[in-house]
Amino acid sequence: MLFPCLISIIYGDHEGFFYGAVAAFLIITGFIGCRFIPKNQTIGVKEGYAATGFSWIVLSIFGCLPFYLSREIPVFTDALFETVSGFTTTGASILSNVEGMSHTALFWRSLTHWIGGMGVLVFLLAIIPMSGGSNINLMKAESPGPTVGKLVPKMRYTALILYVIYLVMTVIEVIFLLFGGLNLFDSLCLTFGTAGTGGFAVKNDSFASYSLYIRWVTAVFMILFGTNFNVYYLMIMRQFKKMFCIEEIRVYLALVTTATLIVFVNIIHMYDNVATALTDSFFQVASVVSTTGFGSADFDLWPSTAKFVLCFMMFMGACAGSTGGGIKVSRLVLLFKSIVKEIQSFIHPKIVKKVNMDKKPVDDVVLKSTHVFFATYVIIFIVSMFIVTINNTDLVTSFTAVLASLNNIGPGLGMVGPTCNYGFLSLLSKWTLVFDMLAGRLELFPMLIIFSPKLYKK
Amino acid sequence: MLFPCLISIIYGDHEGFFYGAVAAFLIITGFIGCRFIPKNQTIGVKEGYAATGFSWIVLSIFGCLPFYLSREIPVFTDALFETVSGFTTTGASILSNVEGMSHTALFWRSLTHWIGGMGVLVFLLAIIPMSGGSNINLMKAESPGPTVGKLVPKMRYTALILYVIYLVMTVIEVIFLLFGGLNLFDSLCLTFGTAGTGGFAVKNDSFASYSLYIRWVTAVFMILFGTNFNVYYLMIMRQFKKMFCIEEIRVYLALVTTATLIVFVNIIHMYDNVATALTDSFFQVASVVSTTGFGSADFDLWPSTAKFVLCFMMFMGACAGSTGGGIKVSRLVLLFKSIVKEIQSFIHPKIVKKVNMDKKPVDDVVLKSTHVFFATYVIIFIVSMFIVTINNTDLVTSFTAVLASLNNIGPGLGMVGPTCNYGFLSLLSKWTLVFDMLAGRLELFPMLIIFSPKLYKK
Repeated sequence: MLFPCLISIIYGDHEGFFYGAVAAFLIITGFIGCRFIPKNQTIGVKEGYAATGFSWIVLSIFGCLPFYLSREIPVFTDALFETVSGFTTTGASILSNVEGMSHTALFWRSLTHWIGGMGVLVFLLAIIPMSGGSNINLMKAESPGPTVGKLVPKMRYTALILYVIYLVMTVIEVIFLLFGGLNLFDSLCLTFGTAGTGGFAVKNDSFASYSLYIRWVTAVFMILFGTNFNVYYLMIMRQFKKMFCIEEIRVYLALVTTATLIVFVNIIHMYDNVATALTDSFFQVASVVSTTGFGSADFDLWPSTAKFVLCFMMFMGACAGSTGGGIKVSRLVLLFKSIVKEIQSFIHPKIVKKVNMDKKPVDDVVLKSTHVFFATYVIIFIVSMFIVTINNTDLVTSFTAVLASLNNIGPGLGMVGPTCNYGFLSLLSKWTLVFDMLAGRLELFPMLIIFSPKLYKK
Repeated sequence: MLFPCLISIIYGDHEGFFYGAVAAFLIITGFIGCRFIPKNQTIGVKEGYAATGFSWIVLSIFGCLPFYLSREIPVFTDALFETVSGFTTTGASILSNVEGMSHTALFWRSLTHWIGGMGVLVFLLAIIPMSGGSNINLMKAESPGPTVGKLVPKMRYTALILYVIYLVMTVIEVIFLLFGGLNLFDSLCLTFGTAGTGGFAVKNDSFASYSLYIRWVTAVFMILFGTNFNVYYLMIMRQFKKMFCIEEIRVYLALVTTATLIVFVNIIHMYDNVATALTDSFFQVASVVSTTGFGSADFDLWPSTAKFVLCFMMFMGACAGSTGGGIKVSRLVLLFKSIVKEIQSFIHPKIVKKVNMDKKPVDDVVLKSTHVFFATYVIIFIVSMFIVTINNTDLVTSFTAVLASLNNIGPGLGMVGPTCNYGFLSLLSKWTLVFDMLAGRLELFPMLIIFSPKLYKK
């Protein structure tokens, strides 16, 4: 919160005071809290999951205080919604007039994406010294996707490498955007939104008024930040052969290309200009598959096939081990492979075949937990959608509002489409979506475990 | 097809000729076919699945010939769609004017539901003598749901019992409907539609013009035919204690009651009369949960929550071991329990707990195949919906058209709502939905195996 303070000094916004006040309060509370260190510092799986869930809730509550106290977002639920949407890198907004916000608020809003992107605890892991092997459980709960890339044996070192890659890529994107004629403030905010695969922009029309160059740069970086970070690690280590062996990446790039082409063919008749149609197709596919949610066109007006392809890409989401949300490409690949295996086992019942991923057999436990993840996902989806429909929101709006929240995308279709916002929803719906955003970001279980009565028993 | 011939004689329809001709052709072909009996009569799982898939395809092709030849449905795809919809007990129609059809055609249309309902092969199993233990694989592929109720050890005897129960319940419903003032023809047709959980009616407005009594009788029988038939067997055997132990039934009835109440509260403001509102709520919930698809009201005009509850009930479908379609209540119960188990295993990682059903532990293979079923279902759903959107059909229509076909329900929402029909869809969409109806009816895999190149290798 000291960064927004700095911004408020530069732009002369009086809102900076509230960021400074909350920051001061947190620094003092933190110092006092550090005095109380428990004897037993081991973190088990249960504690890891619960700690992750609670950390994000506390983080979001304090993160929204400056919005609320400065009256820039006068309703507490709205302020919390916007902040959770930021930290979870969703990018769903309740604001109808983004351009009316102070520079300070816009910067903090985008910065929450950047902080959230890499996972707050991986972030903390990299800067706060902790000893022992207890970090692995926190890491496991935090990192998106079914596999924790064991890049290097020591966990803190891993976090540091990921963090450096993240920072370097952020700097490169800012430079590219500055070349496109954007000012530093806009470049920083948009880059934060891209890096965290968040989606908060600084204009009311998101990306619709930017040049094709800016759109292409952002689209490419959205794809890059949605890529499994193991790729970059292997690239640094010059293990190019291993890099191309990662099946998830190949499927991811193949699907992005296919989807872009389908959308392009489907929308070309709406455009005078082939280049713009191709740009918008690629930009929107990149935006939803990476679960960023920037909008360069109102895809709610596109034909059904394009909308459906975008919905499918929303469901899938980005790669495991990236900053993106969603079900994850690798999970879908695993599900697909286990179906193929099941059908084969009907034909040749005696052959026991293992599902392979990256040329290695996949453990049955991983397969089972993938299926359980998927089923849990569907159940949360159904319950959330039921609650959202209570206010008689139409089915497409309700469906995509839940989808966009649970997969941390941002805009949906209908009344939560790219040119609309979430402000009109009831308080109950907003709280439900807040839960969905957190559950989606934390791979479901850390948020569910909080509601388990058994957690609170000794 | 001899039954519709009889009807045509009674009502003096000239269309009966075509039914007789096709019947004669099939009798002759059948006799000739019987001469070629293979030496090896063992039916393995692979052959069982493939035989089931192909049987239904052949059955549907010959079943649609009378519609096509008599020019009552002049387009072949439409005739096939209507017949597949009949045999698979879907009830999705391409006809805009049902009342304009001949009595013969209406009777054959409804009869396909009745034949399809119990599963054509169970039907054949009961009337054609076959020796040896090879029937179990056919039965396994045919019977809806994850468990084949091994009611009695001998398979043919089981089929016979199921068949007798089915027949008796059909007769009872006809009697009840006759008491309500319907004529014998309408009573028979509607009962066929109910017993098979099909949904073809004989009026253009389905059930909207019938009395409350007729609606209640039909609704109760829809629930009864959507119930696991093991219950009736246990009832006959006077094993009432065991009967109440079946978890699926309890969940089924609890969900039907809850859904009816939610829909009732949600739609009561649209009615002048509490009794009619309650009747319509119960009738529509029963209609979609049993995957019948009769309509007593245009639920496409209901509020979002009611529509969503109906959609959820459509997804779930009826009990395993009933004539209904859908994912099945027991599968959802299993999925839900395995999620609860997974969450518990996070909290107490050392305790290995089995998922229980009906107080018995569930085999891991059953659990795994349930998850695989679910994932396969979702993939078929996505691909089908993609194809249906190609003609720019709106998302709600496309979504519910696939849902209603894959779960063998009939009407959906939007342009395939209860007052509309499937006639306007493109040929490609119709063929896709034909595949979905068959896949849904045969629990997915028998239809998928047909496309596996390995099946055709020696």
